[in-house]
Amino acid sequence: MAIDVSVIMGSKSDWPVMKEACLILEELGVNYEKKIVSAHRTPDWMFRFAETAIDRGIKVIIAGAGGAAHLPGMVAAKTVLPVIGVPIPATKLQGLDALLSIVQMPGGVPVATVAIGASGAKNAGLLAAQILAISDQELQKRLKVRREDMAQQVMEDGELS
Amino acid sequence: MAIDVSVIMGSKSDWPVMKEACLILEELGVNYEKKIVSAHRTPDWMFRFAETAIDRGIKVIIAGAGGAAHLPGMVAAKTVLPVIGVPIPATKLQGLDALLSIVQMPGGVPVATVAIGASGAKNAGLLAAQILAISDQELQKRLKVRREDMAQQVMEDGELS
Amino acid sequence: MAIDVSVIMGSKSDWPVMKEACLILEELGVNYEKKIVSAHRTPDWMFRFAETAIDRGIKVIIAGAGGAAHLPGMVAAKTVLPVIGVPIPATKLQGLDALLSIVQMPGGVPVATVAIGASGAKNAGLLAAQILAISDQELQKRLKVRREDMAQQVMEDGELS
Amino acid sequence: MAIDVSVIMGSKSDWPVMKEACLILEELGVNYEKKIVSAHRTPDWMFRFAETAIDRGIKVIIAGAGGAAHLPGMVAAKTVLPVIGVPIPATKLQGLDALLSIVQMPGGVPVATVAIGASGAKNAGLLAAQILAISDQELQKRLKVRREDMAQQVMEDGELS
Amino acid sequence: MAIDVSVIMGSKSDWPVMKEACLILEELGVNYEKKIVSAHRTPDWMFRFAETAIDRGIKVIIAGAGGAAHLPGMVAAKTVLPVIGVPIPATKLQGLDALLSIVQMPGGVPVATVAIGASGAKNAGLLAAQILAISDQELQKRLKVRREDMAQQVMEDGELS
Amino acid sequence: MAIDVSVIMGSKSDWPVMKEACLILEELGVNYEKKIVSAHRTPDWMFRFAETAIDRGIKVIIAGAGGAAHLPGMVAAKTVLPVIGVPIPATKLQGLDALLSIVQMPGGVPVATVAIGASGAKNAGLLAAQILAISDQELQKRLKVRREDMAQQVMEDGELS
Amino acid sequence: MAIDVSVIMGSKSDWPVMKEACLILEELGVNYEKKIVSAHRTPDWMFRFAETAIDRGIKVIIAGAGGAAHLPGMVAAKTVLPVIGVPIPATKLQGLDALLSIVQMPGGVPVATVAIGASGAKNAGLLAAQILAISDQELQKRLKVRREDMAQQVMEDGELS
Amino acid sequence: MAIDVSVIMGSKSDWPVMKEACLILEELGVNYEKKIVSAHRTPDWMFRFAETAIDRGIKVIIAGAGGAAHLPGMVAAKTVLPVIGVPIPATKLQGLDALLSIVQMPGGVPVATVAIGASGAKNAGLLAAQILAISDQELQKRLKVRREDMAQQVMEDGELS
Repeated sequence: MAIDVSVIMGSKSDWPVMKEACLILEELGVNYEKKIVSAHRTPDWMFRFAETAIDRGIKVIIAGAGGAAHLPGMVAAKTVLPVIGVPIPATKLQGLDALLSIVQMPGGVPVATVAIGASGAKNAGLLAAQILAISDQELQKRLKVRREDMAQQVMEDGELS
Repeated sequence: MAIDVSVIMGSKSDWPVMKEACLILEELGVNYEKKIVSAHRTPDWMFRFAETAIDRGIKVIIAGAGGAAHLPGMVAAKTVLPVIGVPIPATKLQGLDALLSIVQMPGGVPVATVAIGASGAKNAGLLAAQILAISDQELQKRLKVRREDMAQQVMEDGELS
Repeated sequence: MAIDVSVIMGSKSDWPVMKEACLILEELGVNYEKKIVSAHRTPDWMFRFAETAIDRGIKVIIAGAGGAAHLPGMVAAKTVLPVIGVPIPATKLQGLDALLSIVQMPGGVPVATVAIGASGAKNAGLLAAQILAISDQELQKRLKVRREDMAQQVMEDGELS
Repeated sequence: MAIDVSVIMGSKSDWPVMKEACLILEELGVNYEKKIVSAHRTPDWMFRFAETAIDRGIKVIIAGAGGAAHLPGMVAAKTVLPVIGVPIPATKLQGLDALLSIVQMPGGVPVATVAIGASGAKNAGLLAAQILAISDQELQKRLKVRREDMAQQVMEDGELS
Repeated sequence: MAIDVSVIMGSKSDWPVMKEACLILEELGVNYEKKIVSAHRTPDWMFRFAETAIDRGIKVIIAGAGGAAHLPGMVAAKTVLPVIGVPIPATKLQGLDALLSIVQMPGGVPVATVAIGASGAKNAGLLAAQILAISDQELQKRLKVRREDMAQQVMEDGELS
Repeated sequence: MAIDVSVIMGSKSDWPVMKEACLILEELGVNYEKKIVSAHRTPDWMFRFAETAIDRGIKVIIAGAGGAAHLPGMVAAKTVLPVIGVPIPATKLQGLDALLSIVQMPGGVPVATVAIGASGAKNAGLLAAQILAISDQELQKRLKVRREDMAQQVMEDGELS
Repeated sequence: MAIDVSVIMGSKSDWPVMKEACLILEELGVNYEKKIVSAHRTPDWMFRFAETAIDRGIKVIIAGAGGAAHLPGMVAAKTVLPVIGVPIPATKLQGLDALLSIVQMPGGVPVATVAIGASGAKNAGLLAAQILAISDQELQKRLKVRREDMAQQVMEDGELS
Repeated sequence: MAIDVSVIMGSKSDWPVMKEACLILEELGVNYEKKIVSAHRTPDWMFRFAETAIDRGIKVIIAGAGGAAHLPGMVAAKTVLPVIGVPIPATKLQGLDALLSIVQMPGGVPVATVAIGASGAKNAGLLAAQILAISDQELQKRLKVRREDMAQQVMEDGELS
């Protein structure tokens, strides 16, 4: 079965955050792969990964990294696929460093940045699905149902008591 | 001709920044519309806009806003289309307020955030095109050519002299 | 009995902070209701809530939210009742994101912002009471007595020993 | 004619920002006074001002200050009237110092904080009016009309062209 | 015996930090008193304290406060004695709010600000002693000996092993 | 005539800020000297300056520096005289770097830090005078008169008109 | 003549800052080259540059970049030569984004980071020279003389007058 | 055996961070010494250390410090050896104060700054080795092998499973 989304991260220690993206993709029935790809420790492998992603049929890349987070931006520099960047709060600066390292890309090479940490990873999965859903009516329907369920839950919490 | 991308902004004063997104879309031959939609001054119109976007055939929304920037996130809450948020540096805090107001979305409703200001607006246009190009080989080719031209220019600057 | 203050929050997880507002309102004998209203998960319900608040006799709204905190500002955009915003420290940025998302409103739609977290929630309750007390001599008296008691307590702590 | 709102500021140099509050109050037909009251240079006068405000019939106080901005919080400590604080961008830190000095009040003494600078001052005027409008149907109507006009203006800007 | 230094703080909860100042004063044989004086909860008592300090023979005031920390600056506004301000890390912003609220005083009313938290409180005690030592040769000698001991200790740690 | 205060700064470019300290000292009739002493460019001269200050009869040192501002802290490490540090806004970070480099001293070596820039320099002059005035009744009187004049000026600005 | 230092930057617009590094190298008689190498626009060329630098005899690389500054870190990931990173203040965040993107490298791949902007570029040149001077007595002597001249200049500024 | 690298730190409490530098130097077979040298508590010893380092044959200095971190910059002011600065997260500001105190050096005296905390200390060790390896083929080889091993490890983590 074709893999649509590739979820990559700079280090195994990013997995507890990044698995939130994977859980959403599973929930929505989106095929994905997950890999460790480090910008700083495996730069060549990162480039090979990015260069071949289109030909491998990947449609969206989700990349998580912390600190001086270069993975999302460098992958984005090597492919014209949409790249979603997840800032990981891996240092004493609580992810502010990762956020700025990912979001402040110069004109020419965009990275779709989401929130710091687990909420961001979850939203990265949803954003990837929303992108795929532009040309997948069934997936779009599932996303709409998910939204309605989410609203329903809030309504049921109703008046706090 | 069908409009694929809707570029909205909270105020006319955001136009000098947001036009960078439009210039890129024009350059790449992507059909777009541009509108003033204010989260705080026209909340109902914002909701109507967001609710009807899918049915109007819009595929990607680019939303720019400054200060307590609620437009991208609120539009995102009302549609499952991908929404790209551009933080506008409209206050004394130089866009840091807008960046955090846009990017720090809670799990469930993603906004694809780009850099503060003109570079971000330009990249919003490119990101929208990259998203559309997933199912548009011709557009993807144009994006690749654009990247090559960009590289070429740098190489020509060569050794500074 | 008429309800004067509506205390709303974006998520059940905000309750431990927001209950401080409710405790103060109870202490001062102000009638209030408390509800979950999410800007991002229940945008329509949020608008309905805000639109009908005046007709339901509500006089002041207290709204707590974290991260990209849009609830106070969006409710404020839909009503001319005074809205008090409480930034919840729900993310790694410790509420600085929520503070800027709430306080940096553009000219035209004010939100009365208080401190991050529990102190802010407590003060939101007091501020609501102070607003109501403009036309309620009895409540104003209770607020003055509360202030005197507070001073008394400090004086009793006197010289630390 | 009774004065409902007192607009105070720490220094004459705050006037270009604080006049935005006064313009709104005038536009809405709210009676106000404006004064220089400095927390640091005239502490006794500040206390006398705050102590006598209720008896003078003042209903809402708007206080603007920059840097280590103590005026709003200290006036709030001396009255149970609602105090709205406007952070003035008077130092190299662009008002971030004033914002934190005003908004981070300890539990017990609230200040209703608005945005840094002119937008904040404008919103301070509106917030004062919204507070007074709780028991003034005519004023509330004027506020609603103002909102509608504001929306109308945005709609007329319509599609940017 | 005459009391030279008055150590005040906004709340009993500041004591674990502020006691560092007192320990230093004791170590150096400086007479001091310690009191709870709250800018926001006991504004009148604060003013009375500040107004009478000179006549009571106090020579230096050390004032600790957290959040929107107004105590040091307001006491400084009411006396021409040197006031040392200690920012207490009492909120989610880790004392950055207190630091800016204390240090960014407008021209005319100085506060001698030290570091956030316990190191700052300790240095406040030392600074008070250094100020008194200008006209107290014996105290100055004790301060010099303390410095030498401090250096000695580091030298003994020598090469880590 | 004996010199009581030494005003030093890291670079000639700091003079436009630091002269504010000197103007205050002149106004108050305090004898002072002013010198360029650079921590990074003249470390030995800085140490000699600091070591000999007490013997030269100096009573208070005012030290201004920008960026990684080490001058106040290093001088403070070499003398038990009170050292007042003025953060100069010399870099793109607008003096926040200088503020933290000066104020965050470790326990053992205090620096009395004032506000960033000209207000801080002015207050450094006043703080030095307030310190000297502890044992100089005439100077203390002049400081009190200055405060009264300052208050008078604000009162005359009275109701803005 | 062998080239010892390679000065690279992400864009021609970085030149006004980066030329400060070159001026120092010229002053000290260090052979250098200067080139535009963009991490995001010419990723392959960047890798080729970094991979071949050692074999070309380069001993130190100075890399300047702004915003989400990936150039220094990515070059460092592809060579074991020392890489000095210069944060360029190219965005509304005044170089704070570039600083964090460059300095917060994960363990394994160091970048020697210097100050934001022109001072940093100048110091990058000096640091490169100091590194080369470890095994070049003549260069070390020139560096020492430069330090002495710098001190001399400060001493001549002497007492400001 | 000649010592090439001197690892110094301001306090024994910095050791848990700074030992990461030492572990790397050991792993790579670089001779080093480690010492407590405090800028503020032992300024004279610090200067003597810095002045004699070249003559003792030291080639690179690694200096760690927290808060108002002056050790790296002051040692750098006293030697033309390359100095690597490690910001220690020793205060409530999580090392941001140390980072700015170390990296924002004025033009003329460079410090090679690395990341806050343990990653930075580790990279300081690697950077020192990379500097020495410019004229030590064997060390350069070991560094290259280390990089390959690091890449190998990531590749083995491969697809997370």
